[in-house]
Amino acid sequence: MSRRKALSVTRDENFSRWFQEVITAAEMAENSGVRGCMIMLPWGYAIWERVQRHLDDMIRATGHDNCYFPIFIPLELIEKEAAHVEGFAKEMAVVTHHRLVRNEDGRLVPDGKLESPLIVRPTSETMITNAFQRWIQSYRDLPVKINQWANVVRWEMRPRMFMRTSEFLWQEGHTAHASAEEADSETRMMLECYRKLAEDFMAIPVTCGQKTDGERFPGAVETHTIEAMMQDGRALQAGTSHNLGQNFAKASEIRYLDRDGGQKTPYTTSWGASTRLIGALIMVHGDDDGLRLPPRLAPQQVVILPLLRDAQRNDEVNAACHALADRLRAVDYAREPLRVRIDERDMKPAEKRWSWIKKGVPLVVEIGPRDIDGGMVMVHRRDSLDTGGAAQKLDDFVGAIAATFEEIQTAMYDAASAFRAEKTIEGIKTFDEMKAYFETNQGFIIAKWAGTADDEEKLKDLKVTIRCLPYNQSSSEGTCILTGEPTTVDAIFAKAY
Amino acid sequence: MSRRKALSVTRDENFSRWFQEVITAAEMAENSGVRGCMIMLPWGYAIWERVQRHLDDMIRATGHDNCYFPIFIPLELIEKEAAHVEGFAKEMAVVTHHRLVRNEDGRLVPDGKLESPLIVRPTSETMITNAFQRWIQSYRDLPVKINQWANVVRWEMRPRMFMRTSEFLWQEGHTAHASAEEADSETRMMLECYRKLAEDFMAIPVTCGQKTDGERFPGAVETHTIEAMMQDGRALQAGTSHNLGQNFAKASEIRYLDRDGGQKTPYTTSWGASTRLIGALIMVHGDDDGLRLPPRLAPQQVVILPLLRDAQRNDEVNAACHALADRLRAVDYAREPLRVRIDERDMKPAEKRWSWIKKGVPLVVEIGPRDIDGGMVMVHRRDSLDTGGAAQKLDDFVGAIAATFEEIQTAMYDAASAFRAEKTIEGIKTFDEMKAYFETNQGFIIAKWAGTADDEEKLKDLKVTIRCLPYNQSSSEGTCILTGEPTTVDAIFAKAY
Repeated sequence: MSRRKALSVTRDENFSRWFQEVITAAEMAENSGVRGCMIMLPWGYAIWERVQRHLDDMIRATGHDNCYFPIFIPLELIEKEAAHVEGFAKEMAVVTHHRLVRNEDGRLVPDGKLESPLIVRPTSETMITNAFQRWIQSYRDLPVKINQWANVVRWEMRPRMFMRTSEFLWQEGHTAHASAEEADSETRMMLECYRKLAEDFMAIPVTCGQKTDGERFPGAVETHTIEAMMQDGRALQAGTSHNLGQNFAKASEIRYLDRDGGQKTPYTTSWGASTRLIGALIMVHGDDDGLRLPPRLAPQQVVILPLLRDAQRNDEVNAACHALADRLRAVDYAREPLRVRIDERDMKPAEKRWSWIKKGVPLVVEIGPRDIDGGMVMVHRRDSLDTGGAAQKLDDFVGAIAATFEEIQTAMYDAASAFRAEKTIEGIKTFDEMKAYFETNQGFIIAKWAGTADDEEKLKDLKVTIRCLPYNQSSSEGTCILTGEPTTVDAIFAKAY
Repeated sequence: MSRRKALSVTRDENFSRWFQEVITAAEMAENSGVRGCMIMLPWGYAIWERVQRHLDDMIRATGHDNCYFPIFIPLELIEKEAAHVEGFAKEMAVVTHHRLVRNEDGRLVPDGKLESPLIVRPTSETMITNAFQRWIQSYRDLPVKINQWANVVRWEMRPRMFMRTSEFLWQEGHTAHASAEEADSETRMMLECYRKLAEDFMAIPVTCGQKTDGERFPGAVETHTIEAMMQDGRALQAGTSHNLGQNFAKASEIRYLDRDGGQKTPYTTSWGASTRLIGALIMVHGDDDGLRLPPRLAPQQVVILPLLRDAQRNDEVNAACHALADRLRAVDYAREPLRVRIDERDMKPAEKRWSWIKKGVPLVVEIGPRDIDGGMVMVHRRDSLDTGGAAQKLDDFVGAIAATFEEIQTAMYDAASAFRAEKTIEGIKTFDEMKAYFETNQGFIIAKWAGTADDEEKLKDLKVTIRCLPYNQSSSEGTCILTGEPTTVDAIFAKAY
């Protein structure tokens, strides 16, 4: 169909501008006037809260407790960390004063200089490791398994909403264990939580795998990742889980008295996911009319619009809308009661409908006098908008709604999987072939790799990185795309966000 | 009974040290090493999460949307606010640099000076008012009803965990309305949410009322408050709701186009509650053995301890504990499945039991081989600890558990109410009588008041403040305790946290 789309730019025309437009059209976030910081509006924040609650449930169910650590980190602790952490990031907000006073011109200026500056946490890793050192004294204290939901700050020179913001929201999990095996299964278990969150809840297919030497978290023994493909063919790292071995524990001198009376060093892990997931959601599921939300995630799953076309029957129409809402709210989908809203705003129905389409609500339902007479409803399915609304018998609609949602959830996942499959290339055997491919294409290349971290540097000329060595390995024989060395290792190469 | 209590100090001996000891004994929080900032440990944070979720449900049910505003506020916005806000607080964390670099001595020092400093939000009031100015253009944009859960920072010179910390967690609601009446009912509705949270969920009786001229939020037309009495007789303001009239909207030049084509100024409100509620919880319900939690609030309501006294029967005991946990988890109390934990730590049973008693878990249940043989369980009720554990038939225990919880919830509320009634004095008629009372006593005095904000200053010599003019007024004739002026107005006087 050739109808005009809701946005002024399409994905094909300008993916980056399209992304910004979706955020604005769906009223998810806006710029705050504070450099690099966004305001998360009700719709964007509600999506984050859904993600957060779903992930939090999994984090608790796997035996972790939530804690809260201070927003500030003393410079001395950062010093200590910087001394042993390679690739230490320096772009952080520094608090130097604790008061404002008026100067001679009557302007407010900083006063009350701190003896030593405080850093606004870029992560709580330092503070938590420091706490572990106090908490872990005996083998009885292990395992320690904690998680934190919080805001963190990393100064961004080129901010982009939901993708790179100076302040962002995330969770970071930190655990300590008595054995290397336990730390390994913890690391993998949490990656599996992220995979479930992305695939089963957000309908985003992801590739699970391990990072290479060049891409691993500094200090980690292994970094596991879920990598998603955006609709421009670029990769986005959507969650990572690090097996830190004894590296962090040794550097921070965490030691405990074991059962046998000996002093031991525990094995630690850390894992995190952030509001970047919302960026991925937009770039995987959005279309040229705005956002599209999988039903399990959607803060509102059904929006009902009363069509008040005949003043004499307005009460009847409103009553029918409320009756439908009540019936739907009594239905469970994915073990939760349906989330239903009646939009009674003083606006034209078409305007209302488009506002919810742009926000990505899976089903918009209209009820007017004629629908009531015929026992019908007009249903607009967000995932197949171009076919227009479809009149359905009210009872059929209600009776099938859970099945409809499951169909939409699956269809969205399948469509994203099909797109990824289409943009995933195998059979490229040399660096030159890869170079040629990325000159005109975007996507995932699966190719052989046996290089070192130094070799990976050479990929940077192409602005390409190894996203991961996927768990799912072909085990086929081949030669490294860069070094020519024989190997069976498959790696995924892509440009990434 | 004369058994030794779990803490080294009693409430009577030193209330302030007792408070700190409860926090430590219950493993709720610890000092972080960052001045004035605490680490909220799993138990303290789980209690906060329970409070948060319960209040959040009420905030949503009353039609508010959650948003998220930046952690930083530009100095220029603070300037603007300071110009028209009396009593402007100056103790705030100021960010002046966005980078750390190594100096010649190899030490990290602040670098990348910001053109203009950023303030770590003491509230988001300024940012939200600023957003309202953009968002509210037409009568169709009203009402705006938003809420934010976030961390805020106010530099504290004399920090005290959960009471005055430099960083604390809270929610702040902000709304804008077309009429004064709507703003008034919003203000009162949100105070009612706080009352329900305190009384029905946390079992803390509170007095609802309005603040006087001297105690009102700067710039507000009316400040409504819930005031709770601690076990030392002092008052704690546990939540406030402000009707800001048009004052804030005018100062921030929020104007909208009304239905009639005229430019109008909206009426705004704001309301907040914080982690101070946890301080109130401790000081209202704690005893000389530690924390006591009302069942509706408790993160764990039942802890089951296996008594492994006979190696041959350990499996049987563990199985019985799991069977009991499963039965209990199938029971609903206050519309939630019971929260049950089996404590399988490698510790002595008595040690385990005391750890949960100090944490305030309502019921601790022990099961050993003999209990299994007799179909019994040993039940320790936290609210009546001094009577020791009581053997109960397993089936009776399970069958009555929801009723038992309701009994405990009510008993805790009633005990706190009785304490407050005992410490609430009426009949004091002069300033001198009041002075004499507070020289040797603590508590609430209900007395007549017709003074001004200047008159209230005189109360400060006694370190006493007017906590509120309670909604519940006697309407009896009398004379102002300070000015002698005839009045019917009742006020509550107390020393406060």
